[in-house]
Amino acid sequence: MNLEQFSRYSCERVDQYLTDRLTHYNAANYLHEAIQYSLFNGGKRVRPMLVYATAQLFSKPNSLTDAAAAALESIHAYSLVHDDLPAMDDDDLRRGKPTCHIQFDEATAILAGDALQTFAFELLSAPYNHQSEHLPSNHESLQLKLVRSLSHASGRFGMVTGQMIDLNNVNQSITLKALEEMHQHKTGALIRASVLMGAQSVGIEDIETLARLDTYAAAIGLAFQVQDDIIDLTSDTQTLGKNQFSDAEANKPTYPKLLGLNGAKEKANALKEEAIAAISPFGDEAAPLIQLANYIISRNH
Amino acid sequence: MNLEQFSRYSCERVDQYLTDRLTHYNAANYLHEAIQYSLFNGGKRVRPMLVYATAQLFSKPNSLTDAAAAALESIHAYSLVHDDLPAMDDDDLRRGKPTCHIQFDEATAILAGDALQTFAFELLSAPYNHQSEHLPSNHESLQLKLVRSLSHASGRFGMVTGQMIDLNNVNQSITLKALEEMHQHKTGALIRASVLMGAQSVGIEDIETLARLDTYAAAIGLAFQVQDDIIDLTSDTQTLGKNQFSDAEANKPTYPKLLGLNGAKEKANALKEEAIAAISPFGDEAAPLIQLANYIISRNH
Repeated sequence: MNLEQFSRYSCERVDQYLTDRLTHYNAANYLHEAIQYSLFNGGKRVRPMLVYATAQLFSKPNSLTDAAAAALESIHAYSLVHDDLPAMDDDDLRRGKPTCHIQFDEATAILAGDALQTFAFELLSAPYNHQSEHLPSNHESLQLKLVRSLSHASGRFGMVTGQMIDLNNVNQSITLKALEEMHQHKTGALIRASVLMGAQSVGIEDIETLARLDTYAAAIGLAFQVQDDIIDLTSDTQTLGKNQFSDAEANKPTYPKLLGLNGAKEKANALKEEAIAAISPFGDEAAPLIQLANYIISRNH
Repeated sequence: MNLEQFSRYSCERVDQYLTDRLTHYNAANYLHEAIQYSLFNGGKRVRPMLVYATAQLFSKPNSLTDAAAAALESIHAYSLVHDDLPAMDDDDLRRGKPTCHIQFDEATAILAGDALQTFAFELLSAPYNHQSEHLPSNHESLQLKLVRSLSHASGRFGMVTGQMIDLNNVNQSITLKALEEMHQHKTGALIRASVLMGAQSVGIEDIETLARLDTYAAAIGLAFQVQDDIIDLTSDTQTLGKNQFSDAEANKPTYPKLLGLNGAKEKANALKEEAIAAISPFGDEAAPLIQLANYIISRNH
């Protein structure tokens, strides 16, 4: 499979899983609409791709792999809905469509984000019949580890703190170290969790293996953000699906501002090389992860 | 122990547990302050009381009982922070103190609420050494059940949907049935989860026992809300710690509006009797649960 095929496979698989689990609930029609709108909005599903690509280094992805991919995407979706709110980044447009609070209203967007976060933990803690689902008999222990990994990455040790640092830094001059600390929390934590949870979903616990995967994940997580900053400066609004210069205009610190455009491109490339080196011992099975690392720093939206 | 003593015991126990787990995290000072402010704000800790009182029907509360109590209180705290936001109920005062978005700012309140939700799942999925903590060897399975119960009660099947229904009902005439559906979700789901999780934390799985407990919990959950409406109408602002008539003024449907003040009082009393009847087979051990049911419909704040 080339990357495009692998991307389509991951998207279809996680979207099917999400659709099956996001059962309709009569008491909450309006909320349900807002949740669906936010979850199925043309996202690239990078985190699910990482989950599946990592799991298949070791074995065939199973139901827990699906749950991990879907849970990460729910957390990602909730974070976008809340980040777009007027009190936060105040964005009207996301992937070319009105943001949740524009399409619905602010209260609904807050609640849809809240419910999407809960949905992630609902997915990870679902009951399974491990025989019919071909899961290892210790699947409850694996599920608990997945809950632990996701809560650690998305809460006060991770994503939420990243957003808090980000908001506090607007209009402030910032060092490269502080910028990296922000990104390591805001986007890096969830990217690293994607790789970790992909491995955990198929029972991998070996410390050295997980450390190697984490080196890969940390490097591409940062590369992803560097490339986002580059795109924000070089792509037009139509390609981007959000207003060009939106970050630059908000006086947010960016890599091109701190390193220059060429410096930022060099940094993205160095991170990609570091990522690929870390997973080279996995051989041919690592092809999708390597292609993903290449994609991350070459994409233009 | 009388109810006052049991309340003090539960408060001290859950507050100590929360304090120990809410370790300081340097990257997020401001967020940490807002989380602490929202979590330790003089709340009555009714949900932890229910958790401990239910667990001790069967055995001595253990670390999972503490985790359940603390997780429920974190979810409750997050829901208050988000409900108070300008786009939601727009409240400036909570328990006599400025609400989180007034004390800090709106973005911080959104993020503190988000992080408090995640914290709940972090608490439930913490690693244990079951020998040193005197936990049953199947504690991972129990932990996963607790995650499942909490996510079910607090998300789109429960609390968040209740708040959505509530917001959609402002300025609308509403039937008694619709009012109850709203409360069953908004507050009832978390009260029922408190009793369920108290039992699950000490390994109770017997369907009939859980059903009996759920009848108790559903009845006091609704009684709690009926009494809240009565208090809103009859107490002054100082006793209440929030503006009197705040719900009535917002044209929210209330029990006294639908049933009259006496009708509402009769309903609260009938629900209390139903609750007490359901748990009478547990004998003397049920004393705290019975006292709690009595307290819920006699409190004036």
